[in-house]
Amino acid sequence: MDPSPPMQGVWCATLSPLDESRALDARRLAAHAQRLFAAGVDGIAPFGTTGEGQSFSVAERRAGLDSLLDAGIDARRVLAATGCAALPDAIELTRHAIAVGCAGALVLPPFFFKDVTDEGIYAAYSTLIEGVGDDRLRLFAYHIPQVSGVGVSVAMLSRLAGAYPGIVAGVKDSSGNFDNSRALVAALPRLSIFVGHEPHLPGLRKLGGAGTICGIANLYPGLLRRLYDRSLDANPPDELAIVERFLAAIAPFPIFAALKSLQAALTGDRGWQAMRAPLLSLTEGEASALRQAVAAAGIVPARDAARV
Amino acid sequence: MDPSPPMQGVWCATLSPLDESRALDARRLAAHAQRLFAAGVDGIAPFGTTGEGQSFSVAERRAGLDSLLDAGIDARRVLAATGCAALPDAIELTRHAIAVGCAGALVLPPFFFKDVTDEGIYAAYSTLIEGVGDDRLRLFAYHIPQVSGVGVSVAMLSRLAGAYPGIVAGVKDSSGNFDNSRALVAALPRLSIFVGHEPHLPGLRKLGGAGTICGIANLYPGLLRRLYDRSLDANPPDELAIVERFLAAIAPFPIFAALKSLQAALTGDRGWQAMRAPLLSLTEGEASALRQAVAAAGIVPARDAARV
Repeated sequence: MDPSPPMQGVWCATLSPLDESRALDARRLAAHAQRLFAAGVDGIAPFGTTGEGQSFSVAERRAGLDSLLDAGIDARRVLAATGCAALPDAIELTRHAIAVGCAGALVLPPFFFKDVTDEGIYAAYSTLIEGVGDDRLRLFAYHIPQVSGVGVSVAMLSRLAGAYPGIVAGVKDSSGNFDNSRALVAALPRLSIFVGHEPHLPGLRKLGGAGTICGIANLYPGLLRRLYDRSLDANPPDELAIVERFLAAIAPFPIFAALKSLQAALTGDRGWQAMRAPLLSLTEGEASALRQAVAAAGIVPARDAARV
Repeated sequence: MDPSPPMQGVWCATLSPLDESRALDARRLAAHAQRLFAAGVDGIAPFGTTGEGQSFSVAERRAGLDSLLDAGIDARRVLAATGCAALPDAIELTRHAIAVGCAGALVLPPFFFKDVTDEGIYAAYSTLIEGVGDDRLRLFAYHIPQVSGVGVSVAMLSRLAGAYPGIVAGVKDSSGNFDNSRALVAALPRLSIFVGHEPHLPGLRKLGGAGTICGIANLYPGLLRRLYDRSLDANPPDELAIVERFLAAIAPFPIFAALKSLQAALTGDRGWQAMRAPLLSLTEGEASALRQAVAAAGIVPARDAARV
């Protein structure tokens, strides 16, 4: 087993920029990733939920990852989201991500059928691991039941980690339920537990959790870097209140469209607004109201914003 | 626009037989389809929910359809389920289904993101129709929100049918909500409205609905044929009570595994039990309890069962 160090830090669940035909603009995504790294982000997780990953075909996700690496992005700083409704697709994408040297694979359970059992989800992950058949695999289970409809329980993960030590490397807990994140850290101390909900980062770090894989880092990478670095301070860092105010300001808007709209505003590149159906861009009126809400919350030190 | 007659009748949402490596056994599926046709079923809908369609890759679904046709199944009796989480995949499968002459395509809306708007779902179907770009397309929208998590509203469908007359050909309403089926027939009298919940078939037919695309037809095609043929009788046909007793008997069991288990019992071919994760086969104990429950309900005239 390769003794690679456990993954930790601030990882950005990258937005997916589209070109005029709504194809992935991999050149723009690579430039975005380079800006994030320059601002102190440890790694990126493309094609997750924030990146509309499930709106892209397997071929598009493979080619998108290849383009990122061709553009000079270090694969060791890429956690590729490779989950799919169908296991053969997830196996293909995961095998590819490992073959090109990614830090790991972030994998949703199959998410079409609901009310599936822990036994069924265990069988799915087990089939995936055996199907990939590569000891270099570092699997991060992806728990986001409010979107996917299918959760990944602590009990199932404990069994899976016991059966595949070293392979099962971590969890992204995007449930927004801190009790669940706490239970994951307690039950799986050797795994890297990440939160998706940014305000939970300091609390998670104090328990020994690994960090965050999150969407706000697209917009304010420096802010998230400092939030992480100050998470173990005795007093809550100022950045925590800023992140909470930001989330309150954007709460009335569809989250992924709001992030893309703000990314367009921050970078001056209106192309960032484009989304794939069934998600839609904000209207001009919504985008304007969103910018006002964010400005009114007075949250963003200019130096933190991701600019062109 | 091709004046093809509206689709109607009894269509079977076929189970997907797997071989020992859990690959689709297309030869066995073709033989199953031929038995269903011989028993009076009008057509088949492979790779729907009952057929575990979302557990198969795009390549597997394409190849599976091709194998069915190579085995002599008439494409005009095949409604191919072609919906996927990602629109490029749905477009590829739909284009292929039309190119090989299928009666139509049964299409889920993109189902990963939840709480999407009617506008977003309209944009998704519109992108699909434009992406397929073939006037021969007969699109059947697939409404099964309790599984997919994303419904297809009457209002959205009315708008879509108005924008793409002739192309938008029908709806499979698998919600199990008869009020919704009634509203579909009322709002879209020129479309073929099918129910998934078999007991709703007589009521739907009396309103002018088209028929059923259902799972029980795998097991008891003759029963469903007679239920359809007698749906307009003044008194409820005996078959209605039989179907209701059958559903009550299997209700305690996971539905798709139960159908496969009974298919194995009826045909004497234990291979039918195999499922793809995250769905699991019944245990021996469950399968035995299921057979007892079905036998105790005394429901199945021997001549109706699909035998080898």
